[in-house]
Amino acid sequence: MEFSGKFSALSRRLQPNVIRQMIRLTHGKNLISFAGGLPSPESFPALEMQSAISKLLQSAPQSALQYGVTQGCAELLDQIGPYLQSRGLARTKSENLLATSGAQQALDLLARLFIDPGDAVLVELPTYIGAAAAFRNVGAELVGVRQDADGISLEELKETLARLKRRGQKAAFLYTVPNFSNPSGVLMSAARRAALVEMARESDLLLVEDDAYGELYFSDCSAEAVRPLSAWDKEGRVIYVGTFSKTIAPGIRTGWACAAPEIISRLELLKQGADLFTSTLNQRIAAELLARGFFQEHLPKLRTYYERKRDVMTAALQSEMGDMARWNHPRGGFFVWLELPPEWEATALMAPAMEAGVAYIPGQPFHADGSGANTIRLAFSSESEEDIRKGIQRLSRFLRTAAHAKPSVAAPPSGRL
Amino acid sequence: MEFSGKFSALSRRLQPNVIRQMIRLTHGKNLISFAGGLPSPESFPALEMQSAISKLLQSAPQSALQYGVTQGCAELLDQIGPYLQSRGLARTKSENLLATSGAQQALDLLARLFIDPGDAVLVELPTYIGAAAAFRNVGAELVGVRQDADGISLEELKETLARLKRRGQKAAFLYTVPNFSNPSGVLMSAARRAALVEMARESDLLLVEDDAYGELYFSDCSAEAVRPLSAWDKEGRVIYVGTFSKTIAPGIRTGWACAAPEIISRLELLKQGADLFTSTLNQRIAAELLARGFFQEHLPKLRTYYERKRDVMTAALQSEMGDMARWNHPRGGFFVWLELPPEWEATALMAPAMEAGVAYIPGQPFHADGSGANTIRLAFSSESEEDIRKGIQRLSRFLRTAAHAKPSVAAPPSGRL
Repeated sequence: MEFSGKFSALSRRLQPNVIRQMIRLTHGKNLISFAGGLPSPESFPALEMQSAISKLLQSAPQSALQYGVTQGCAELLDQIGPYLQSRGLARTKSENLLATSGAQQALDLLARLFIDPGDAVLVELPTYIGAAAAFRNVGAELVGVRQDADGISLEELKETLARLKRRGQKAAFLYTVPNFSNPSGVLMSAARRAALVEMARESDLLLVEDDAYGELYFSDCSAEAVRPLSAWDKEGRVIYVGTFSKTIAPGIRTGWACAAPEIISRLELLKQGADLFTSTLNQRIAAELLARGFFQEHLPKLRTYYERKRDVMTAALQSEMGDMARWNHPRGGFFVWLELPPEWEATALMAPAMEAGVAYIPGQPFHADGSGANTIRLAFSSESEEDIRKGIQRLSRFLRTAAHAKPSVAAPPSGRL
Repeated sequence: MEFSGKFSALSRRLQPNVIRQMIRLTHGKNLISFAGGLPSPESFPALEMQSAISKLLQSAPQSALQYGVTQGCAELLDQIGPYLQSRGLARTKSENLLATSGAQQALDLLARLFIDPGDAVLVELPTYIGAAAAFRNVGAELVGVRQDADGISLEELKETLARLKRRGQKAAFLYTVPNFSNPSGVLMSAARRAALVEMARESDLLLVEDDAYGELYFSDCSAEAVRPLSAWDKEGRVIYVGTFSKTIAPGIRTGWACAAPEIISRLELLKQGADLFTSTLNQRIAAELLARGFFQEHLPKLRTYYERKRDVMTAALQSEMGDMARWNHPRGGFFVWLELPPEWEATALMAPAMEAGVAYIPGQPFHADGSGANTIRLAFSSESEEDIRKGIQRLSRFLRTAAHAKPSVAAPPSGRL
């Protein structure tokens, strides 16, 4: 039949996730892809996971395979609490924690908890597209606030809050990725963090902190520099969202939210309706890797591993594109952010670049205000060092050819952002 | 701080799931519990799962632990399609399928796809509480339609549809559990299925079929009798929801939806924002158990295993309570449905029953209209045969004492419903 029912008002406004669509296109032979922000499969602790699973299925199959309580397995919450405390968070008791099906679910539940259709939600320019999707799916109006090299611009945030106030609006919350932002790789400075939390207090603004990349800091960074925004928070104003997707493996789909108990208990009710509980098997795998100390030993290896890739990419950019683009030198995470001259359209160039054998993701879709047409996200996380070098060569050659074909392109500012 | 932000209108209406709260109370020493509808841990194929996981983590860790596409792993969808075809469904191509984080997530996504706040959703009296929660969480008004021994009453459905029409309303859909309904254990007859699909066609009503228990039919039933409602559907009007929670294990949290491609593609977009994808590891475990033929061999064993428990419970009821209550004789699933005399209040009796050493779930919370105060759901799925006998003895003794303390209780109708 032709479907004759009606879809809900919210679902009629569903937009395809253009970045997911783009990434889908980037699986091809001989294609070097800087598109998907995937952890390298080489980083997955498959052996240790197998050992953990064998132990669980031999010693505790009754609980590891059974229905779990919605808030999360005690075994996991008991590990996450002290771990977050070691990262500087103050309130990390069980009552502050909810295990979620990836950080994405935490964002979705927070969206449902705080956003009414038409509400403003503040996001960074650029911001993580999956968060934007979760917020838009409940009818949020996204309001972008520009980032600079030290994180979200507080001047612009202040102006934006004032503008909303004049319109009689109050933002449901501000969503931020202070550690090695996806897509821009930016690390928010300590001074900025302190000032942001203070401004939030003054303006009675709720903050949602997404810390997907915080553990992946490099040797030109430090544990202190990635101390979560939440660590500056004295009053429970920052809701912290984390995940094991980058530090263990995405396939176990285990994340968490850390917040005031009155928020956690409501998120728990929402989660009951959303998926009842997160896979107990997966939660127990993560709990086991933390309990046996493997997780903490694994992190330094991950940092070294991804730092080499970052180094290879930024060195290749320097030698290949120093005269034609600007980029940042991320001190952790998965992404380099590249700026082409202002008149370039990275989206239009994506398909011909793929024909030339290299894929990237244009920066524009990450911008809630539609800006960023000349920007590019380059993920250094998943390709080999050799392919990173080769891919940047290809990109450089391709862009030079494209510039040649388009003589209006001005000589760009060059080198590091 | 005291949280000073505002919660969304929908989340302010969140209701605690009273049944989950009740079940939480039922973990005590010496307590025999017929409360939680849990599969027996004895039924979990832990060894086979361990072997499947070892194979996956040795041969394909890159994909089994990596991010997955939102629709689901090809390996799983390729197994679910032919499996559903063997159950009688007509349209089971990949484009008809979405892997979900348990059947609960499928219900949540369907709720978000079809329901606007204030919309009517038709449910059976009694109905599955998790579905009711998902529908209420998006603002549905639940309208109950009574079940009889053959499933939902079509006379009452017809009247209800007419009443809604007179009010200018149209139901978003009808939610039904035709095979061994949770909580009532009722099996919808084949004639009723055919007539329901026909009535849905005439009334242009969308049907959501939840088939969590369909594979657990007993020797007094047959594969033909549990053929899904969807098998009667010629026009893509029935949306089918399934799960491996009862046939493999709840801990892998893997379910699916089967529907017209235009519905699946929208559910996929909603799922992208909700949790991005379902655990690839878990999907691949399920796919592996199906691919190696284990799943199909496991099902007859499950049927025999649960049938014995059903037999023990109904025999114990017959010998202990034949003179004081009525119950049905479910031909599959996990639940016996018990009716006490009309003036009894099963909710009020729950706490004293637990003090007497036996737990059950009162039937009233499963009724969208607040009826069913004298009904009880008894899960025979998880206690041992010996404890089922002992628990029914305790229940009988307890109810007799309660009846004695409350002399107004009339002699009830007795025996099987």
